[in-house]
Amino acid sequence: MMNENHSDDQYGRARVQDSDELKAYYKELENLGAGALWTVANDIEPWEPRANSVPMLWKYDDLRELVLKSSELVTPEQAGRRVVYLVNDKRKDVAAAVGWLYTGIQVTRPGEFTSAHRHRASALRFIMEGEKGYTVVDGNKIMLEVNDFVITPNSTWHEHGVEEGGKTCIWQDGLDIPLVNALEANDYAVLDGKQDLVAPLNYSPITYGCAGLIPADKTWDKPYSPLFKYSWSKVYPALLEAQKVNESNPFDGIFMKYSNPLTGGHVMQTMGASMQLLPPGFKGKAHKHTGSFVYQCAKGKGYSIINGQRFDWKERDIFCIPSWAWHEHHNLSETEDACLFAFNDLPVIEGLGLYQERELMENNGNQLITK
Amino acid sequence: MMNENHSDDQYGRARVQDSDELKAYYKELENLGAGALWTVANDIEPWEPRANSVPMLWKYDDLRELVLKSSELVTPEQAGRRVVYLVNDKRKDVAAAVGWLYTGIQVTRPGEFTSAHRHRASALRFIMEGEKGYTVVDGNKIMLEVNDFVITPNSTWHEHGVEEGGKTCIWQDGLDIPLVNALEANDYAVLDGKQDLVAPLNYSPITYGCAGLIPADKTWDKPYSPLFKYSWSKVYPALLEAQKVNESNPFDGIFMKYSNPLTGGHVMQTMGASMQLLPPGFKGKAHKHTGSFVYQCAKGKGYSIINGQRFDWKERDIFCIPSWAWHEHHNLSETEDACLFAFNDLPVIEGLGLYQERELMENNGNQLITK
Amino acid sequence: MMNENHSDDQYGRARVQDSDELKAYYKELENLGAGALWTVANDIEPWEPRANSVPMLWKYDDLRELVLKSSELVTPEQAGRRVVYLVNDKRKDVAAAVGWLYTGIQVTRPGEFTSAHRHRASALRFIMEGEKGYTVVDGNKIMLEVNDFVITPNSTWHEHGVEEGGKTCIWQDGLDIPLVNALEANDYAVLDGKQDLVAPLNYSPITYGCAGLIPADKTWDKPYSPLFKYSWSKVYPALLEAQKVNESNPFDGIFMKYSNPLTGGHVMQTMGASMQLLPPGFKGKAHKHTGSFVYQCAKGKGYSIINGQRFDWKERDIFCIPSWAWHEHHNLSETEDACLFAFNDLPVIEGLGLYQERELMENNGNQLITK
Amino acid sequence: MMNENHSDDQYGRARVQDSDELKAYYKELENLGAGALWTVANDIEPWEPRANSVPMLWKYDDLRELVLKSSELVTPEQAGRRVVYLVNDKRKDVAAAVGWLYTGIQVTRPGEFTSAHRHRASALRFIMEGEKGYTVVDGNKIMLEVNDFVITPNSTWHEHGVEEGGKTCIWQDGLDIPLVNALEANDYAVLDGKQDLVAPLNYSPITYGCAGLIPADKTWDKPYSPLFKYSWSKVYPALLEAQKVNESNPFDGIFMKYSNPLTGGHVMQTMGASMQLLPPGFKGKAHKHTGSFVYQCAKGKGYSIINGQRFDWKERDIFCIPSWAWHEHHNLSETEDACLFAFNDLPVIEGLGLYQERELMENNGNQLITK
Repeated sequence: MMNENHSDDQYGRARVQDSDELKAYYKELENLGAGALWTVANDIEPWEPRANSVPMLWKYDDLRELVLKSSELVTPEQAGRRVVYLVNDKRKDVAAAVGWLYTGIQVTRPGEFTSAHRHRASALRFIMEGEKGYTVVDGNKIMLEVNDFVITPNSTWHEHGVEEGGKTCIWQDGLDIPLVNALEANDYAVLDGKQDLVAPLNYSPITYGCAGLIPADKTWDKPYSPLFKYSWSKVYPALLEAQKVNESNPFDGIFMKYSNPLTGGHVMQTMGASMQLLPPGFKGKAHKHTGSFVYQCAKGKGYSIINGQRFDWKERDIFCIPSWAWHEHHNLSETEDACLFAFNDLPVIEGLGLYQERELMENNGNQLITK
Repeated sequence: MMNENHSDDQYGRARVQDSDELKAYYKELENLGAGALWTVANDIEPWEPRANSVPMLWKYDDLRELVLKSSELVTPEQAGRRVVYLVNDKRKDVAAAVGWLYTGIQVTRPGEFTSAHRHRASALRFIMEGEKGYTVVDGNKIMLEVNDFVITPNSTWHEHGVEEGGKTCIWQDGLDIPLVNALEANDYAVLDGKQDLVAPLNYSPITYGCAGLIPADKTWDKPYSPLFKYSWSKVYPALLEAQKVNESNPFDGIFMKYSNPLTGGHVMQTMGASMQLLPPGFKGKAHKHTGSFVYQCAKGKGYSIINGQRFDWKERDIFCIPSWAWHEHHNLSETEDACLFAFNDLPVIEGLGLYQERELMENNGNQLITK
Repeated sequence: MMNENHSDDQYGRARVQDSDELKAYYKELENLGAGALWTVANDIEPWEPRANSVPMLWKYDDLRELVLKSSELVTPEQAGRRVVYLVNDKRKDVAAAVGWLYTGIQVTRPGEFTSAHRHRASALRFIMEGEKGYTVVDGNKIMLEVNDFVITPNSTWHEHGVEEGGKTCIWQDGLDIPLVNALEANDYAVLDGKQDLVAPLNYSPITYGCAGLIPADKTWDKPYSPLFKYSWSKVYPALLEAQKVNESNPFDGIFMKYSNPLTGGHVMQTMGASMQLLPPGFKGKAHKHTGSFVYQCAKGKGYSIINGQRFDWKERDIFCIPSWAWHEHHNLSETEDACLFAFNDLPVIEGLGLYQERELMENNGNQLITK
Repeated sequence: MMNENHSDDQYGRARVQDSDELKAYYKELENLGAGALWTVANDIEPWEPRANSVPMLWKYDDLRELVLKSSELVTPEQAGRRVVYLVNDKRKDVAAAVGWLYTGIQVTRPGEFTSAHRHRASALRFIMEGEKGYTVVDGNKIMLEVNDFVITPNSTWHEHGVEEGGKTCIWQDGLDIPLVNALEANDYAVLDGKQDLVAPLNYSPITYGCAGLIPADKTWDKPYSPLFKYSWSKVYPALLEAQKVNESNPFDGIFMKYSNPLTGGHVMQTMGASMQLLPPGFKGKAHKHTGSFVYQCAKGKGYSIINGQRFDWKERDIFCIPSWAWHEHHNLSETEDACLFAFNDLPVIEGLGLYQERELMENNGNQLITK
């Protein structure tokens, strides 16, 4: 029978008292690049998953002016990429917004573009503002509109820009840079100049953009989705339709995963993404699970309670939920739906067998606000 | 065309000069939990993989007495597990031997046993000394002999011991505790007492122990190998046979992977393991690749050059090779083969698309010793 | 070196001359339920794939009246299903249209419906005429329109009907009954009455109908597509869009496969399906490959040359292409596109490692009409 | 509720009475290459799987002399392959022993060898007699001993022979020729002369012959096992060991599948194989399932009851079990075990979703002998 008691003062946990003899012994070990496991065991083997990040919310009202200001202070040419990144109070050392996920807000003015580069880290973007923005992924140029979701996977060449005559574009970047650095595997390369285009404009979203229809005469052996852009103009109507025939998930409303249409899996090997619609008046239940999540409100307004702390959000606000944090989402409108985009490290957590989940049973499934 | 120049003073890298205006701007960002990417970009996006660990070797001659002494200083009951762990000079904060891999040396005297526990972290063992040691994995009791390799995967109940009448057993533990902690997903549970056995002694290695023969009437849906023990009594003869019909790999000699016989993949989701035989007089070439490795010499003597530093090893010595470190192995005997056991994080590195490899082209493929 | 000579009068082929002694020997063998391989070897081991079917075309102008007449002659209640099936001149013994594929034309009048049944054989339908037709697949009711493609996989309960107030529906059925009978695995069951609905109307096509968006909170472990209907109202616009950014395949124009959005594979385990658009004036090249195909013209008019014989088709005509038959498709209109629906046994042929393909090299890739 | 009544006189089955009007109608349809489904539906949609083969047993005592005699009557050069094939009384048209499986007995005298050829059909062999026999599969030469199981997969070049100084070899061939012909996909090619060897003798069984140990530095992308030979010298001891720690399967004793060590799946894409040990005194229960099976007794003596008919077998006898036939196996010795080798079409049946199984519930699970 499994023992549910989580006290360290029990059989199966380290309970060694210090003594002079032991202290001398520990010193000997230290000199050899060693240590006694029982001096650290209870710390490195916690009873439950333990996150290093704290929940945070970044209000777009606060950030927008500063983001735009960057476009006056530095050029893309100087900055590499002109991005304001959002950093967790407890993850400044690794430049992460939560867990091992990086996020930033990039601004590009009409006529500007970056040079092409690639890196072992994977990237994704969620469009916040602007017109005539585009990305080029491995020679595929793709136009971007507000609330579109686009991927630039591991080691693909990519560059971004806004056409002359467009409007200043702002988008959220999501990358696994902290993870790939932690795994000691990141790299970087720059291209002399721009990529050559290898396909007509929007080839990827057009070719793979009809559910269940794929080219019969092409093969795809890359470990990421051949569908590089998921258009809001298709996604939002699909959510509304889905709402008619699906019950709301008690935690997440109408909850859809962006997926690779050739595998049904996550869009990339290290990061997944989802879009969820909270119906008018939706009051979510609380649960917690492993995995780190960065959210952006794509539509509407509401609040999330994360580990007992309430975070109010509206369109374009960004917030994060650390691993194993209790969380629940509420739509503050009784008439309008609210939509939350999120990206996460679930491909890592699930792929390595580390996913687990728990529902809150107390208080009818809702947290008390304690902070 | 890809630019092979790795200077940060080029287009595509951050090259912003500080100014008072910018400093004020950075302060504003900091107050909002944000920062300017270009102030950190070149650091978090290195040109090549960058390891945080250093190569190290732990001599068994130094450690053995201290390991045995632990059995006088603490009981298994007090210590939880009586283990001396080996820690990298640069990874003391996470108790890792290299990268995100933990290793330790555990000693158990005849008649001793631990209580059963389980954790989200995966574990493996490589037997160094003793007789009549055993492990129990999810109710399967398995006897262990020197140079046997045994797994106790993610969330399996496990306990170890040495039968009365046996000889003190010493084995190397390998775990991914640092990784699973970093991914904020570890957990721990203890069992009240010992596991009930669910199968006859050695059921797993006997049932899955003939190459290409598996039970026709059983299914296995676990994400790890049903073969829990890989016996040296079978592995070493197989290496000798393989040597007759396979050319030596220039880097690794006769190089075999412990694999899941139902998938051909790694034995567990987060850690892999290999055994390699360096023929008499083998002088390996140098290469480097991503992934972290902990080695134990299972037989013979030789040395490895790791990032220009020579490490001499003989039977039972343990050493590590960090990610992206140049390394080459040499057998110092002209008459006897040498065998190196290793475990690694390749399932993580490969599974997330982060593996890359490079051969040393200079100096006929061998490093100069520089340290 | 492979010998390209296909004469049986060479080393490696059976070339035994009959003799009285051999004849006596053959008799002895026959008495024991045996034979001499060399007496049949050249026949059962052909140099190239050999089909038992002949190319055929069934004109809808000929069949339509007879199909409608069936609705006067028998009731669904008497007939089980009121279907006119199309049978290959060389496959009457197995009721196949080509190879091991069955096809038929089913008619249902407003207010009629069949009882629910299921079978190990898989089925699909392609809608030819009518309004307010529906199918119910494992409790999922789905409305059908002209040129929609719908699946009723292996062992799913299914029933069909036309709502009161609709218009008489005619659709093409495709089944692998001949294959599953040949593999000695078919079965059949009837339900007492109608199925209970388990989901709102059109749940499946709505929920899985947006490319790359799938429920984040549902799992699907069936070996066939969760998307049961592929709507022409989405497919045809997608073909037109794809045409803008894809080059025409020289054999098949704009050539798309109906796929399982969770695997990128065929919609069912034994039958696949495709839709291809032949641009105005398209003149296809000839090739041949293994696998059997049943086509229906969904739009336009044209002709196909199959093994040197020309078959002219227009909307609703059905034709078949046997395995390893040379074939090429031509659109007869210079202004309108033509669309060909097809279903096939490619999951079988590919899955068992039996697919091969050859392009016609002579005559600029086009066949001479010889029949 | 599913209706268990299997009468055709019920709703959901075709129950149309003939009439003059209908007869005229059927004639009209026939003229157009069509028919009325209800005239054939009950026949082509049976309630349960229906096999075309009958159970048969071929006694080696009867066949051996005739097999050896073939080596006097024809040369390998004349015969292509000097094989006596075994043919089911109901499958003479397709040269199958059961279902779509071919089997034959091949004899090769010392110093004889065949020329190299390949075909889309897959082949396997089970060695019955002799010494110094060998096969060469895609340039890999492998020595064969009695009761060894060896594969020559789809489209691999292969040739066989017996070394000078060996003893006349007799082995059972198993092929899926009837299946691949039925699927209209077979082909054949001969090589001018012998294959060049690409690896040392026995490379494959040596390299992949230790359970759970595979080359770390080689990849294998073929859809069949890299282990070409499964040695009786390893298999039989493994069965004996397995017997100690596994309960006997009530139908099949100690029941092991030959598997691809890189996938845990069948050894080839179209045929699987198994070896089972019936302990002394074993009295199996009866069950039936889809799939066709050809057995050879590798050791001991016993009998099988197949669809109520008893077939007694001893070492080297061959028998077959058709799809969906009730069958049970009995060891006639109370002191010696009996071993049955079998090959089957399970990769096809399982891969296409056509496997089902039923236990006999009556009479304590044993059949009454009725024939």
